[in-house]
Amino acid sequence: MNHPSAELARFVSELQFASIPQPVLRRAEDLLLDCLASVLAGSHSRPVRAIAGYARAMGPADGPAQDIVARRGTSPLFAAMANAASAHMVEQDDVHNGAVFHPAAVVFPPAVAIAQALGRSGRDLLVAAVAGYEAGIRIGEFLGRSHYTIFHTTGTAGTLAAAAATGRLLGLDAAQMLHALGSAGTQAAGLWEFLRDGADSKQLHTAKAAADGMTAAWLARDGFTGASRILEGPQGMAAGMSSDADPARLTDGLGTRWALLETSFKYHASCRHTHPAADALLALVQEHDLGVEDIKSVVAYVHQGAIDVLGPVVDPVSVHQSKFCMGVVLGLIARHRRAGLPEFDAALSDPAIADFRGRVSMRLDPEVDAAYPRRWIGKVSVRTRDGRTLESRVDTPKGDPENTLSRAEIEDKALRLGCYQGAATPDEVARLIAQVWGLAENERVGWFL
Amino acid sequence: MNHPSAELARFVSELQFASIPQPVLRRAEDLLLDCLASVLAGSHSRPVRAIAGYARAMGPADGPAQDIVARRGTSPLFAAMANAASAHMVEQDDVHNGAVFHPAAVVFPPAVAIAQALGRSGRDLLVAAVAGYEAGIRIGEFLGRSHYTIFHTTGTAGTLAAAAATGRLLGLDAAQMLHALGSAGTQAAGLWEFLRDGADSKQLHTAKAAADGMTAAWLARDGFTGASRILEGPQGMAAGMSSDADPARLTDGLGTRWALLETSFKYHASCRHTHPAADALLALVQEHDLGVEDIKSVVAYVHQGAIDVLGPVVDPVSVHQSKFCMGVVLGLIARHRRAGLPEFDAALSDPAIADFRGRVSMRLDPEVDAAYPRRWIGKVSVRTRDGRTLESRVDTPKGDPENTLSRAEIEDKALRLGCYQGAATPDEVARLIAQVWGLAENERVGWFL
Repeated sequence: MNHPSAELARFVSELQFASIPQPVLRRAEDLLLDCLASVLAGSHSRPVRAIAGYARAMGPADGPAQDIVARRGTSPLFAAMANAASAHMVEQDDVHNGAVFHPAAVVFPPAVAIAQALGRSGRDLLVAAVAGYEAGIRIGEFLGRSHYTIFHTTGTAGTLAAAAATGRLLGLDAAQMLHALGSAGTQAAGLWEFLRDGADSKQLHTAKAAADGMTAAWLARDGFTGASRILEGPQGMAAGMSSDADPARLTDGLGTRWALLETSFKYHASCRHTHPAADALLALVQEHDLGVEDIKSVVAYVHQGAIDVLGPVVDPVSVHQSKFCMGVVLGLIARHRRAGLPEFDAALSDPAIADFRGRVSMRLDPEVDAAYPRRWIGKVSVRTRDGRTLESRVDTPKGDPENTLSRAEIEDKALRLGCYQGAATPDEVARLIAQVWGLAENERVGWFL
Repeated sequence: MNHPSAELARFVSELQFASIPQPVLRRAEDLLLDCLASVLAGSHSRPVRAIAGYARAMGPADGPAQDIVARRGTSPLFAAMANAASAHMVEQDDVHNGAVFHPAAVVFPPAVAIAQALGRSGRDLLVAAVAGYEAGIRIGEFLGRSHYTIFHTTGTAGTLAAAAATGRLLGLDAAQMLHALGSAGTQAAGLWEFLRDGADSKQLHTAKAAADGMTAAWLARDGFTGASRILEGPQGMAAGMSSDADPARLTDGLGTRWALLETSFKYHASCRHTHPAADALLALVQEHDLGVEDIKSVVAYVHQGAIDVLGPVVDPVSVHQSKFCMGVVLGLIARHRRAGLPEFDAALSDPAIADFRGRVSMRLDPEVDAAYPRRWIGKVSVRTRDGRTLESRVDTPKGDPENTLSRAEIEDKALRLGCYQGAATPDEVARLIAQVWGLAENERVGWFL
């Protein structure tokens, strides 16, 4: 077997702790903490509770893996399902710009669940997470921009990322890993249509990607076979769900380029497509000391992907949907100079935000669009009530690798997320932080919290 | 809400026993028996055992729904998963020609599991099954021929069929049912790529369609929302996975046309795409009293869909893969005048079949292709060793509604399937038959067998 899928499977199955550079391992810990804090932050929400309730109805009453949403033990499948649903809920989990893919939500929950159930070490978990990131990001890049116009890449590529991470923990060899990717790819799903209704599907997508990827890997260990070229074959994922897939991306720099390091932290609690414009507006209102009443109108110059995802959301009816509304996000920046979880909770009932929404428009910008998805440039133009036209631009949104968060900032974000709606106490989050920073020395991954 | 998806959801949620014609109900019983017998026939196979093992590892140790593969109780999710995997294994389950969709495997296992878990009546189960068939078949027709070239419709449309059937049993109202369809459609998956390797994915597709559809319906009952136009919306299933979708098919004749009655029984134990040619060859060898040695070559004149699905399978390495090989199927007809389960088990090691394979070719036929998928015409041309060229044609393959099986033939088929590889005893199958024929009088669906 010598084709891109097989090469990727071999890399994932043979990845060793010693061959992963230290900065990649440290960043993997950062991303794990960011993910677990996101799981806590989402754990009181209605859609996540529904999925956790389903896990309770269909799964075992107890088990070796930790469902952080319900704070109970269950089998790895349901722990992965509940935690992955929650990880993506408050839109604060990480994102890989080039792949337009949220790796943490679909990699860590299933990997942690399998590590807990099988008593694997912290190092094993870190290796598995890196495997999941490296595979999933390359698969997202491979599927391309055409895929993302209809499909939620985190759901589709995410299923294979989950299979790679859990497959590594299950000790799959290269042939078994290829079967796991085949079984994962043939389950890969997730459509953007739900955004138009503000429906709950995004949580289902991450829950299912995590669960289905684990299923694929577990079955592969038991001899269940899958297509050997599920990604690039003539009736595979790219054939069915992309028109610009590039197989060379699947193996780009394996072992030398660490895609995990390219992952961005989210600073604002909204869809990543809003962040470049939000950062540009934030810089502008700070520089000119503008308040929300000073602004007559804003034009956000964006890439086509932002219009595809955010365009349908003009009149948000839920907090979650408002995170996909450029008008709300820029309104919060103008009003509070911040778009965090508490600001979003208050936004829907704030007449100033509703009013501001109508003054925001998006416009496709050739330069921004050409740079995307490699770079996410933010450009806004503001008309003030006193007649000025002001321009602002950021080349690297806050949280991107070139403008990343320090460990202190990551801990601060984890504390805010973990304590959101009383999900955890500050003491619990402090212990969680210590557990994650000490992970590589842990002989056996236990429960967090 | 007034659009095709909403109209379909309303029909499914409001369907009543009294409004379903008696022949539809009787045929639903026929199809249930055919399905349960198929579940038994597949239950000893390796891929099905792997999925049942996964259900045991991840699910509860006991429960109200019957996993027929492992003959044990579990939660409805895992009973649906294991039984649906097995229902499609031996390629003897039903098919709707126009939709190119196998409804039974994805409708009955989840519906039976929910009926058992909730203590619903036999009539409730029959109504739910009809709901699943009517929705699933129309969705398959809607997705069209372009969809089927890449996607396994039984996996994709099947997820929504399972949601419709289980949603009806869960008592979803029209709005909840629309949410269930939305959550089902955004999980819909299944690619044909596995055929090229003879991999196990077909069983995963039916298992996942049954399980995911149930998940969607269960979540909808708990208030979890989905896209309102997952089928026809601009970022929905058709937009992503079809180029010839026709929304009018979604509501075609709802309440007057009973698509369930259009479903065919499978007579040969192979992919349905091989049946028209198999029937044509069978008629020819019977009429001219030809043996396998008398035949120099066969050309099967087929529709494009047959070439898409069967074309990659030229050198089958497993019993399952050989059911997708036109050469093997026609070889069995020529050699045994029968292509049943025992004949397939012996085929791989039979040199006469291996030799015959190379003498069979498929050719796209304009007339056959134009009639497909509404009608599945079989045409073959045979060159004999003594120099004759013989032609044969069937307009309606055995098992189609116009050439269907009698209840005696259905019982005989159930006995052969049920006892295959010792899955059940003849007495057990006899009791199963009696249970199904008495279903409409049963106040509470219990375990079969």
